[in-house]
Amino acid sequence: MRYNPVTKKIVDELIQILGPKNVFTDVEKMEAYSHDETSVEEYGHMPEVVITPSTAEEIARVVRLANRELIPITPRGAGSGLSGGAIPVFGGILLSVERMNKVIEIDYPNMMMVLETGIVTNEVNALIKEQGLFYAGYPMSLETCYLGGNIAENAGGGKAVKYGVTGRYVMGLELVTPQGEIVELGGKLSKDVTGYDLKQLIVGSEGTLGIVTKATIKLTGLPTAKSNLLVLYKNPKDAIDCVPVIMAKGLIPTGIEFMDKLSVQTSCEYLNESLPYQQAGAMLLIEMDGTSQEQVERDTEAIGDLCMENGAIEVYVADNYTTQERIWSVRRNIAEAFKVVSPIQSLEDIVVPIAAIPDIIPELDRISEKYNIKIPCYGHAGDGNLHATLVKNPDSTLEEWHDLVPKALRELYEVTKKLGGKISGEHGIGLKRKKYMEEIINPAELELMKAIKTAWDPNYIMNPGKIFDLE
Amino acid sequence: MRYNPVTKKIVDELIQILGPKNVFTDVEKMEAYSHDETSVEEYGHMPEVVITPSTAEEIARVVRLANRELIPITPRGAGSGLSGGAIPVFGGILLSVERMNKVIEIDYPNMMMVLETGIVTNEVNALIKEQGLFYAGYPMSLETCYLGGNIAENAGGGKAVKYGVTGRYVMGLELVTPQGEIVELGGKLSKDVTGYDLKQLIVGSEGTLGIVTKATIKLTGLPTAKSNLLVLYKNPKDAIDCVPVIMAKGLIPTGIEFMDKLSVQTSCEYLNESLPYQQAGAMLLIEMDGTSQEQVERDTEAIGDLCMENGAIEVYVADNYTTQERIWSVRRNIAEAFKVVSPIQSLEDIVVPIAAIPDIIPELDRISEKYNIKIPCYGHAGDGNLHATLVKNPDSTLEEWHDLVPKALRELYEVTKKLGGKISGEHGIGLKRKKYMEEIINPAELELMKAIKTAWDPNYIMNPGKIFDLE
Repeated sequence: MRYNPVTKKIVDELIQILGPKNVFTDVEKMEAYSHDETSVEEYGHMPEVVITPSTAEEIARVVRLANRELIPITPRGAGSGLSGGAIPVFGGILLSVERMNKVIEIDYPNMMMVLETGIVTNEVNALIKEQGLFYAGYPMSLETCYLGGNIAENAGGGKAVKYGVTGRYVMGLELVTPQGEIVELGGKLSKDVTGYDLKQLIVGSEGTLGIVTKATIKLTGLPTAKSNLLVLYKNPKDAIDCVPVIMAKGLIPTGIEFMDKLSVQTSCEYLNESLPYQQAGAMLLIEMDGTSQEQVERDTEAIGDLCMENGAIEVYVADNYTTQERIWSVRRNIAEAFKVVSPIQSLEDIVVPIAAIPDIIPELDRISEKYNIKIPCYGHAGDGNLHATLVKNPDSTLEEWHDLVPKALRELYEVTKKLGGKISGEHGIGLKRKKYMEEIINPAELELMKAIKTAWDPNYIMNPGKIFDLE
Repeated sequence: MRYNPVTKKIVDELIQILGPKNVFTDVEKMEAYSHDETSVEEYGHMPEVVITPSTAEEIARVVRLANRELIPITPRGAGSGLSGGAIPVFGGILLSVERMNKVIEIDYPNMMMVLETGIVTNEVNALIKEQGLFYAGYPMSLETCYLGGNIAENAGGGKAVKYGVTGRYVMGLELVTPQGEIVELGGKLSKDVTGYDLKQLIVGSEGTLGIVTKATIKLTGLPTAKSNLLVLYKNPKDAIDCVPVIMAKGLIPTGIEFMDKLSVQTSCEYLNESLPYQQAGAMLLIEMDGTSQEQVERDTEAIGDLCMENGAIEVYVADNYTTQERIWSVRRNIAEAFKVVSPIQSLEDIVVPIAAIPDIIPELDRISEKYNIKIPCYGHAGDGNLHATLVKNPDSTLEEWHDLVPKALRELYEVTKKLGGKISGEHGIGLKRKKYMEEIINPAELELMKAIKTAWDPNYIMNPGKIFDLE
């Protein structure tokens, strides 16, 4: 074991840096910091001490202490992650940015905001909505997740087809490096080739290359026109087959979300909601936005017609806010609903080229049959990113479940790779998927990643045990 | 000196790998590979051998040879670079990708193309234009530059305000690493968080982290409507002051290009062209595009009105292809024209936050006066990226010029830094700007860059002497 325990002396030193209120070791209080949205039983791990710093300087001091004493640090946002990235798997220091939630600046002339990374993502948009602006980089969990977590995972969301993911909107970062230095990467700049793009390397590095304490994010003009289509299909295959057809048309929807029957039903029951034709075998939820209502309506109609010509049973237009919000709420709550109904599950995040998603559905059917488990599926079909969810069969034992999951996943990942895909589109590798990295990533590429990690963090104190293991 | 000379034995081994036609050492033939678009006298350097491989496998073998024998390799595209990035400053092997210009695949369903990196950028767009598609990541030098060079520099261009720069369109890369391994980074994926984003680290790394042999690029629907405004102002200050006003309006132009009087005149004389009111003190060239002619015209009119309310003398609408192409040709040829008229110059590439560009103009005036040199200025004002060009005063000696340039640049860069800017927006650091890196980049950030370089290329054989020096 490479790490030292957190002794009383170290806790005292942390208290000296942060004050007694921001350092705690009582088990009851620490429990909430021992897991994220992955299975507590499978991935949960208690930290030895939890700290809640409020400045980059404090964090830098803690990081230097951790290097000196060989104590691992696990940075943590809201704990809403889906791959175990914020779990202190080697114990040590759990560093929560929860108190770092200040808005440093709203810079209207540059259409940027400077924020601490402990801010809840949705609050960002609430602050600028009235000025006709929005931050487009947010994920589906925007009501609870922190900006820092979005950056760590390079989170996607329901608008990524048109607007891209978090990384496109991160213009600058304040980072505490694994050696305890504070650096400012990027800035309020549209373009910048002054040396390597370290900012973009940090985005999506899951807290293994440092702790992001501030971010400068780009704002976009809030679209004034919006329309949603709920398109019903007989079965998942018909719905998914339609997605590349829409994408190739050249009209750019904000998002194309896919939901199979079980996903819609489970979420509707959880919310006590009903959608038209819940009986349909699958649905696409297609959003269009823009600055001209006329144009948006014309594009929406064109897409609706295209869907009807390509296997849809029925097309509903949701053109008012209430109906749109109802449908999106069903979509947003699928993961949460499945967690309640089927707590023993594996929520997947594969991503393939758009044109290859139709090939995934029969493979899910095949794996589902072979292992006698349900695999409901939903996700960001317009990005080729599907959240197939392996759900434990109530008739089988936990032992059987733990035995079959890696086998089923290996089959799914093998197909994904064969189709030119990868095993995570937006949830990250974290703890949950690291054992599959060697199968999906070329060994030489993995060595390049590890070389960066080792060069920046030679003591492996920064969020160790995530993405890959190091010897 | 850390490198060994290229001996006859090594040349023979290169011939074994590549064939005799693709290895040459005659000085006359090598001369063309000894410089780029920066000053030959100041930055030029002869290679010891030039090679023109045709596959990644050949390149991998050469890289392994170079590591074994400690010979530097300088990768080279079209040689149209503006920062000396492709100059073999330590001699050694000059590796030109000129024969690697094959189109591997045009994938319409995924709207992507797979290309070798020696292809001329403009040819990419010629191939897909009829299908209503375009590659939006191209720079101003598209008629001569190679895709590989665009990727190495993360090149920008005249459409970056709306479409962003090269990096946004690079979805996948085939890379020969500095150790001579071949890796595939990214893929035909809209999103991907399967480990660190090495692809984006390679973009803009100026060939110092490996040689990009293939790229998968994203295509965009070709806009069917386009309009250009040529807006005249009394002086540069009035023109630049107007840019943040336009940007804050929320209408997103394709680009906002700025040209001062001397830039327009010089390019017009070079092209034997005339624009209306060449006598104006400065111009903005504003392009709008979209899918609806009506919408584009409405937006164009709104921007025209806004300009007239904010200091413009006159607004010309160029709504047909011929006039648009004439104006853009003037803009594209400014750098070339200045090179002919004033070959002794320093073409700069500073980038600042949009709202800060008005503060740059008086500083240019001040520096111009202080050092008694002309500093014509043009560039991508909508990105905050200005190509101020220091031009040698014909009355002064070369010695005086070489003495004053670093002083004048240090003043310009200091102001740029103070305004939150950086010293290169799209041309790169290369050879030309590396001596200023320590002044603009925090030492801790520079150490992080160097740590990656050292970890990946411990023998420093891959394009050494660029971006920063290593001891």
